[in-house]
Amino acid sequence: MPTATGHTKAIPASKVSGTAVYDTKGDKIGHVEDLILDKTTNNIMFAVVSFGGFLGIGEKYHSVPWSLLDYDKEKGGYVVPLSKETLKNAPSYSLNDFTKADGSTAIRDTSFDYYKVARYW
Amino acid sequence: MPTATGHTKAIPASKVSGTAVYDTKGDKIGHVEDLILDKTTNNIMFAVVSFGGFLGIGEKYHSVPWSLLDYDKEKGGYVVPLSKETLKNAPSYSLNDFTKADGSTAIRDTSFDYYKVARYW
Repeated sequence: MPTATGHTKAIPASKVSGTAVYDTKGDKIGHVEDLILDKTTNNIMFAVVSFGGFLGIGEKYHSVPWSLLDYDKEKGGYVVPLSKETLKNAPSYSLNDFTKADGSTAIRDTSFDYYKVARYW
Repeated sequence: MPTATGHTKAIPASKVSGTAVYDTKGDKIGHVEDLILDKTTNNIMFAVVSFGGFLGIGEKYHSVPWSLLDYDKEKGGYVVPLSKETLKNAPSYSLNDFTKADGSTAIRDTSFDYYKVARYW
């Protein structure tokens, strides 16, 4: 997703975790908890986003394609072009699931399909 | 680089920062300070490695291709196939340089050339 808001192309991983996530209406819906990286390639597999409070589903984590997170400088957070309905039914996991054997590969595939984001691998 | 040590392919970004880095002789030479991500693609641009103490060059940071960091489970850190001589002459920067305008693109290009790692972009 192009950086329409004019920030630089590069971002340190340390600045991503903890950053707020908003829906397109401007409501805060959660935060980025972590990023899952592929150790064998130069790829970011997906972002781990917590929508904890807002959906009332406890501490569940969503695997969201990195390209869906568009940084909004004014908000100081990421905006995702997803409705609450889409988020409510999105695949969710516990943190352990992401690093279990090669579970992350299946999770990535499932998530990109769910969000209808073109696979880059 | 294949995960010869048998760890899983996926790794959370939060686990990378602070991890020790060793040379192939087994000497600890620094630690991973951060990762620089490309916001507009799914790519990890490079790792930011601090070789601070060991080279006696103060707080300078090196942009090292992610694929050069091979995780060694026994050591609990990354091993880089680089000699001290190579590291001593490697391009180094201040942390600010990595996010200055699009400085990171030039830094990435310079670093991949220096370490003779094939470009993936």
